[in-house]
Amino acid sequence: MNYGVVIKVLGNLLAVEAVSMIPALALAIYFDEGDKVAFARCIVMMLMLGYIASQAPQGKKKIKAKEGLTIVTLGWVVVSFFGSLPFVFSGSIPSLIDAFFETVSGFTTTGATIINDIEVLPRGILFWRSFTHWIGGMGILVFTVAILPAMGVGSFQLFKAESPGPVADKIVPRIKDTAKLLYKTYVIITVAEIILLMLGGMNLYEAALHTFGTVGTGGFSTRNASIGAFSSPYIQVVIAVFMIMSGVNFSLYYELYKGKWKDVFKNEELRLYLSIIGISVILIAININTQVYQNIGVSFRHALFQVSSIITTTGYATVNFDEWSTFSKGILFMLMFVGGCAGSTGGGMKNIRILVLLKLIKREVSKILHPRAVISVKVADRAVPPDTLAGIASFFVLYMAIFALGTIVISLEGISLISASSAVAATLGNIGPGFEFVGPATTYSKFSNPSKLLLSFFMLLGRLELFTVAILLTPRFWREEI
Amino acid sequence: MNYGVVIKVLGNLLAVEAVSMIPALALAIYFDEGDKVAFARCIVMMLMLGYIASQAPQGKKKIKAKEGLTIVTLGWVVVSFFGSLPFVFSGSIPSLIDAFFETVSGFTTTGATIINDIEVLPRGILFWRSFTHWIGGMGILVFTVAILPAMGVGSFQLFKAESPGPVADKIVPRIKDTAKLLYKTYVIITVAEIILLMLGGMNLYEAALHTFGTVGTGGFSTRNASIGAFSSPYIQVVIAVFMIMSGVNFSLYYELYKGKWKDVFKNEELRLYLSIIGISVILIAININTQVYQNIGVSFRHALFQVSSIITTTGYATVNFDEWSTFSKGILFMLMFVGGCAGSTGGGMKNIRILVLLKLIKREVSKILHPRAVISVKVADRAVPPDTLAGIASFFVLYMAIFALGTIVISLEGISLISASSAVAATLGNIGPGFEFVGPATTYSKFSNPSKLLLSFFMLLGRLELFTVAILLTPRFWREEI
Repeated sequence: MNYGVVIKVLGNLLAVEAVSMIPALALAIYFDEGDKVAFARCIVMMLMLGYIASQAPQGKKKIKAKEGLTIVTLGWVVVSFFGSLPFVFSGSIPSLIDAFFETVSGFTTTGATIINDIEVLPRGILFWRSFTHWIGGMGILVFTVAILPAMGVGSFQLFKAESPGPVADKIVPRIKDTAKLLYKTYVIITVAEIILLMLGGMNLYEAALHTFGTVGTGGFSTRNASIGAFSSPYIQVVIAVFMIMSGVNFSLYYELYKGKWKDVFKNEELRLYLSIIGISVILIAININTQVYQNIGVSFRHALFQVSSIITTTGYATVNFDEWSTFSKGILFMLMFVGGCAGSTGGGMKNIRILVLLKLIKREVSKILHPRAVISVKVADRAVPPDTLAGIASFFVLYMAIFALGTIVISLEGISLISASSAVAATLGNIGPGFEFVGPATTYSKFSNPSKLLLSFFMLLGRLELFTVAILLTPRFWREEI
Repeated sequence: MNYGVVIKVLGNLLAVEAVSMIPALALAIYFDEGDKVAFARCIVMMLMLGYIASQAPQGKKKIKAKEGLTIVTLGWVVVSFFGSLPFVFSGSIPSLIDAFFETVSGFTTTGATIINDIEVLPRGILFWRSFTHWIGGMGILVFTVAILPAMGVGSFQLFKAESPGPVADKIVPRIKDTAKLLYKTYVIITVAEIILLMLGGMNLYEAALHTFGTVGTGGFSTRNASIGAFSSPYIQVVIAVFMIMSGVNFSLYYELYKGKWKDVFKNEELRLYLSIIGISVILIAININTQVYQNIGVSFRHALFQVSSIITTTGYATVNFDEWSTFSKGILFMLMFVGGCAGSTGGGMKNIRILVLLKLIKREVSKILHPRAVISVKVADRAVPPDTLAGIASFFVLYMAIFALGTIVISLEGISLISASSAVAATLGNIGPGFEFVGPATTYSKFSNPSKLLLSFFMLLGRLELFTVAILLTPRFWREEI
């Protein structure tokens, strides 16, 4: 392992994070609130540490898979640790573990919170809290669309049509090009939502913060009642639509921009994603209409909002959906596992994996009918290689295994099985709220410190596509030269 | 489709079932209870119907995959329907749907019951009820070990070392040989348990009925409190040991008989199965000892019993484990999915599939370390073919999909999510009791008729390895000539 290069990159990352804290500092100074000193201290400290680390002797310049994997996981941890310091220094979140949980939750765009009263916190702190979603969302876009395929990790190679596999010296320019396009799209969507929310009567500050939570599919709000605090149906629908948009593969926006409407319309993952949303909204709307609201318009709006919020793994709430019937909650629970599309800011397993796995089942049925036929699983008219199929299947199994074992460990808290399992599903899938003990009307504050750390770990695990993190836990990774 | 041959085989099956009712009739006559007329009527009717059906013109004698699959699923349904008639005719279970549920539960060796007071029923009826477990257990052994591989369906080819694939004219003798061996082993284990239970003070009748429930991994008892009614630790331990034995691949007993102790000891599926049991027993014993019993011996016994009962998918209970802590219940819930070994009477996903899937994950990690290496998944030192891997992965995904969607549908009953999900897991995995609404201290009687039918369907689906049944639901199966 080339530790020099790892430390150097982490140092650079820290410097970038320090710079990204400046808007929060500016806001704190503008409002002249108590958190300004905390931000100033953090920024100076991080710049200094970042500079020192960036001077590490890096030896050979080449970053190999081993360094790459270490940087990604460690980077997320380091950034979360330092990002939590403003919360601690300002006294907003006195406990370091709580602050770490909150910041991991922010950067992984989970949106699970340990803050019981958000509304008393200074505005600079709240800005930083929501801004971590926005940074995290951008980070994950670049990570899954550009870095993962370049490292040959995971099953995402499949989804980048232009990617002919990593060709050593061409990686860097392609990553940069892709990243630049993603940044642009991300910024455009962000600005659009802020404007639309302001047209609905929100002030710039709240419009921006809720947009960060939306486009990053994070879910942090400035209000204790989440989006329920904004009774305007317009605002709720705007946020719902932008959540759905943020769960779409971002490269499709580029296709749209290039006028390839047909390709976008034929995209199978998009179709599955929208179909699941459509069916879920209809089923839940009918169910909650008879059970709770007795008004089809209101029922439809809340169903649309909640379904969009959960499937995109955002986690905003307009109502306490934990009070809905088991049927509606069951659907939402299942959506927690589906998640957004590949190449979006959404978490979960991703629709493309569900799509491939459904096709795998279909093929198995065909094989019983025609045992001797060779049938390939096709996505976008191209056969999915057996290795990719095995990779996707492994991902699904590992996801369920972590979910099951995680639930058992978390249940040591003495909470109900639904509380424990939904807490694990909601962190592993980067959603935020779950049910009962972690329902939308409550927070993660009542967990013990070990559980908070474990749940933070799950957020990271889910965000980094499991294997990227899991591999660091194997002795082989550290033993072998790769 | 050659309907003649299907009807003919079903007719023969009906005749066999009629004969298998004779012991129950004899018992009813011996005790001179009200159910004797019901049995007599059923037997005469079934023999007549069976004879008529067996006269169906069968055309070509050869049974192809299409007929085979239809016979298997339809056979299970027909046998369950006629097997339920003694319950209805005797007035023991007035509702036909309830009686059907109970009989499907019996033949699939699930053990889920709709009878709230078992102890008032006539002994002939109770004998028949438990005997369906014994017949079902034997049926499933022959089905999974002999018939499925011969039809080339599912992923069980893997586990029969001697099976070189179906060679047309050699199938019948091999099925017969294998079946004969299985029968022998099954009968020996049955007799052994009956004797051991009688040595513990049970009378022959109760010893036999509980043995049927054990070796078939069914779970029907003659007592409302299940095995909790027998306070003798000896009896509880004997049943626990025989449950574990019945969850083992039966071909291993033949290996043992041939003196191949080493092969048995090296069997990876057996090792995984015993490891899961061992770890679960220890964790639960410690947990319930501090939480409930404060006596390590008692805690260990109940943990051993409940873990064995759930993982083998039997469903007997010595205590109301629904009152245990979430941690212990979480482990039991997970064991519902694991199930027994392939080639045993146990249900669930089977340990061999879990084993292969764990190895698939391990390979995925290795692949990240060595992207260009070709690494095969090996069981018993032989590479698992990619098609079999895909088959096992599809099975896992389909199992989880049915579990999730089934839970949502069943939750329309207005019960809790744990009730709905454990009811689906407990029927799909052929376990019997679940948690809360379907806990060990309650029954399935409170479900609506549609739910009872759906849960019966899940029992069948799980018992017949999903795809065997699922394929009959595809239009292609009926349209295409195969």
